[in-house]
Amino acid sequence: MCRFLAYQGRPIFIADLVAAPCRSLIHQSLHASEGKTETNGDGFGVGWYGERAEPGLYREVRPAWSDENLRSVTEQVRSRLFFAHVRAATGTATTRANCHPYAVGRFLFMHNGQIGGYTRIRRRIEALIPDDLYLQRGGTTDTEAIFLAALADGLEMDPVRAVASTLAKVRAEMVRADVREPLRFTAALTDGSHLWAFRWSSDHRPPSLYYRQDANGLVVVSEPIDEDASAWNAVPANMSLSAGPSGSPVLSAFG
Amino acid sequence: MCRFLAYQGRPIFIADLVAAPCRSLIHQSLHASEGKTETNGDGFGVGWYGERAEPGLYREVRPAWSDENLRSVTEQVRSRLFFAHVRAATGTATTRANCHPYAVGRFLFMHNGQIGGYTRIRRRIEALIPDDLYLQRGGTTDTEAIFLAALADGLEMDPVRAVASTLAKVRAEMVRADVREPLRFTAALTDGSHLWAFRWSSDHRPPSLYYRQDANGLVVVSEPIDEDASAWNAVPANMSLSAGPSGSPVLSAFG
Amino acid sequence: MCRFLAYQGRPIFIADLVAAPCRSLIHQSLHASEGKTETNGDGFGVGWYGERAEPGLYREVRPAWSDENLRSVTEQVRSRLFFAHVRAATGTATTRANCHPYAVGRFLFMHNGQIGGYTRIRRRIEALIPDDLYLQRGGTTDTEAIFLAALADGLEMDPVRAVASTLAKVRAEMVRADVREPLRFTAALTDGSHLWAFRWSSDHRPPSLYYRQDANGLVVVSEPIDEDASAWNAVPANMSLSAGPSGSPVLSAFG
Amino acid sequence: MCRFLAYQGRPIFIADLVAAPCRSLIHQSLHASEGKTETNGDGFGVGWYGERAEPGLYREVRPAWSDENLRSVTEQVRSRLFFAHVRAATGTATTRANCHPYAVGRFLFMHNGQIGGYTRIRRRIEALIPDDLYLQRGGTTDTEAIFLAALADGLEMDPVRAVASTLAKVRAEMVRADVREPLRFTAALTDGSHLWAFRWSSDHRPPSLYYRQDANGLVVVSEPIDEDASAWNAVPANMSLSAGPSGSPVLSAFG
Repeated sequence: MCRFLAYQGRPIFIADLVAAPCRSLIHQSLHASEGKTETNGDGFGVGWYGERAEPGLYREVRPAWSDENLRSVTEQVRSRLFFAHVRAATGTATTRANCHPYAVGRFLFMHNGQIGGYTRIRRRIEALIPDDLYLQRGGTTDTEAIFLAALADGLEMDPVRAVASTLAKVRAEMVRADVREPLRFTAALTDGSHLWAFRWSSDHRPPSLYYRQDANGLVVVSEPIDEDASAWNAVPANMSLSAGPSGSPVLSAFG
Repeated sequence: MCRFLAYQGRPIFIADLVAAPCRSLIHQSLHASEGKTETNGDGFGVGWYGERAEPGLYREVRPAWSDENLRSVTEQVRSRLFFAHVRAATGTATTRANCHPYAVGRFLFMHNGQIGGYTRIRRRIEALIPDDLYLQRGGTTDTEAIFLAALADGLEMDPVRAVASTLAKVRAEMVRADVREPLRFTAALTDGSHLWAFRWSSDHRPPSLYYRQDANGLVVVSEPIDEDASAWNAVPANMSLSAGPSGSPVLSAFG
Repeated sequence: MCRFLAYQGRPIFIADLVAAPCRSLIHQSLHASEGKTETNGDGFGVGWYGERAEPGLYREVRPAWSDENLRSVTEQVRSRLFFAHVRAATGTATTRANCHPYAVGRFLFMHNGQIGGYTRIRRRIEALIPDDLYLQRGGTTDTEAIFLAALADGLEMDPVRAVASTLAKVRAEMVRADVREPLRFTAALTDGSHLWAFRWSSDHRPPSLYYRQDANGLVVVSEPIDEDASAWNAVPANMSLSAGPSGSPVLSAFG
Repeated sequence: MCRFLAYQGRPIFIADLVAAPCRSLIHQSLHASEGKTETNGDGFGVGWYGERAEPGLYREVRPAWSDENLRSVTEQVRSRLFFAHVRAATGTATTRANCHPYAVGRFLFMHNGQIGGYTRIRRRIEALIPDDLYLQRGGTTDTEAIFLAALADGLEMDPVRAVASTLAKVRAEMVRADVREPLRFTAALTDGSHLWAFRWSSDHRPPSLYYRQDANGLVVVSEPIDEDASAWNAVPANMSLSAGPSGSPVLSAFG
């Protein structure tokens, strides 16, 4: 199980959320929380928006907790919109190309979950990617394949609909291949302006998703990053969250 | 342009050929030879056969010349059959999964050359890989795709014919996509018992290939590893080389 | 807290002990045992003896659990004497030079423990290293400094006495600097022929040390690598273990 | 021989100087210039000043030319003052801790050159570092040792005098050890406000140093980064360059 964080709001140092809090993502990467036994030491990534339309990206195969570069970059870079992800691999290799978030054009995408039976249907999932996007396929993860397929399903026009459409196609391939394992999908997406998050699974047990709004802005996380449980709102299963640059998040039924 | 070396014969330390000679592969990786301006600093790999049917593999994204582990492993491991490769990337990322040699089952494969227009026909090349081998696709290089496709073309039964068949299919895809750049292919293959090497291109300018037989055994290289020019035999263009565990290399027309 | 394993006996594949057992070192690196909350993801190392007097060494900054090279090298290399170590850093950086085991000449050394107040007395510990060995100082760990100092204290002549002498000097520096934290030292040493292990601390709470003798040979570990508790003998605190190439381990009072 | 670049002026993207020019530092790292046969593939580093007094730092052991993170960070980060360095190792290991620039507090330091006989006098050079700075000694290079020693020689009060004082001490140690090789030192230093550069050697053959002033600001380089030779001013041997945040560089006799 991976862990992630997305932020949108007043420009803040990335480290303020990714490194500083008592249960920050970097902290979580090493110190598993109660009942969650995994370590997230199979690479990490940070994506952020600065002055350009395209995001910056720093991804590395080392664990987040010991990377001096990650600490320095997140302490120096102030951003109004950023993603961070620490990975626990589920079968694919630990390479930079398999680290989240993924960036294509002005979009960033990251994911916690798994396509059941992925190794058997990987090729069919990849077949959903159109030719002009296929060159962006740099790694082997299910997440990258879903992202590229969703771009073809109209991510630029209607992101929520595009993701839902892609997930439906993935599910259809799973059924076709007689996969019994579930599709679990908790993810975050941005085009550099709006932020979307998704929590859905085929077995009603999607990975957790929380958000918090405070004076600075909106924080969306796989798990709370501090002990103030009351500040965090759980996103119910099969819902999506949508938020504009300054507005409040809106939850909608999804999937 | 990449550089490589293959050895078969009396068990010797890998370093005896890969690190020790005055123009060893590790030396070549840093110090470009006359007229060859490239540095081979985009990762490297060593594959060798020991007691198991499957080869060992050590591949890394750092340059070969500064890797202490490579030095130590090659100084310690004695092998009757090994491959070594230093890479100069031609468009694909520097990840372990993109480093040669590639291993599947008891086979090892490595390559110097390039499929013209690869980025435009990558998907069609990958379509040559059958489902049961597709999971072995860990990177994005043309070399790995050719290797997996050739396995499907009967590499276990008739390696030379299988490689020729795959190259013909690749050429057909290039023509179909109206690619003008050539297909250049100088490669080495082994099943742990026999050694094959290939030198072919669609424009009659395949990368160089040499071999030498001495008291220890057979050495096949992209370029000579010492200054004794007379000891090295150039493999003519559009030829393949084949050698059994103890026999002399046989050259045949190829392609 | 780090974890380590040393083996001496009939030549076996390194993976047979380092990767295969249910609680193998690689398994332990990711899945913390009961009551031991740490992950050992701050680099690893394997040192082994083959045909040369000097050991081979493969050390890397990535976690052991995801390194394909480690898996391949340990599956291919058969050795009569090898060390393996997975690291949890205690303040020093995650670099290869800070990964155990350390090799100088024909010796290998690895350690689990910590010099209390090391950051305050690092320089004084390094002052114990003679000029001719100082160039071997490649990293910043307390372990490497102790090893180099012990070499100067006669490791080649009387290893147990040399280690005891160095530890006494380190303790003296700690006292001189008014360090209150303990010196905890559980370590393994070999010259390629004999194997020594040490369990000592200034506060009577040295890290654990176990050994097992079976049909193949002697295994010395920081923690048992399988669930057969009865097969493992705990080395009591303030004892050293000594074993020749074929003999049984002998325990002696130490420190 | 290493290569470096320092910039001070109007905030610009780091990539504008480090990646974009036809002979940018990243380009130089792979493609050796005429008469300079070395590749700078032994790690790299970028240090920059943003909103904090302390600089950001991104250093990596891979070659600069293939690092996606370097490209992304330098394209995103705009800075009024930054250093970049590509390394060709001269005997010390390729680790992050041995990559320039070095940062202590608000200072950045980088270097091209070499202390003759360093391996024989490393310890004496390190003895110039006071206790309270010794913990900052993370690697094994001569550059880092000189930097830490110069901090003790009053870098904060009078940087030029401090560097000169340290170099004099280093020279004295070389003479004392009967070292015949020269001390060559071309370096850049900043406290986040002022920029200093130095070109000095004991044999009147210091590595080259150039600067250019344009509409944006001041660029100081080991070699010109474009083909407009007339725009670049060579700093004569045994001179230092000094520049405030907005002023013109002043050259003075040095050493």
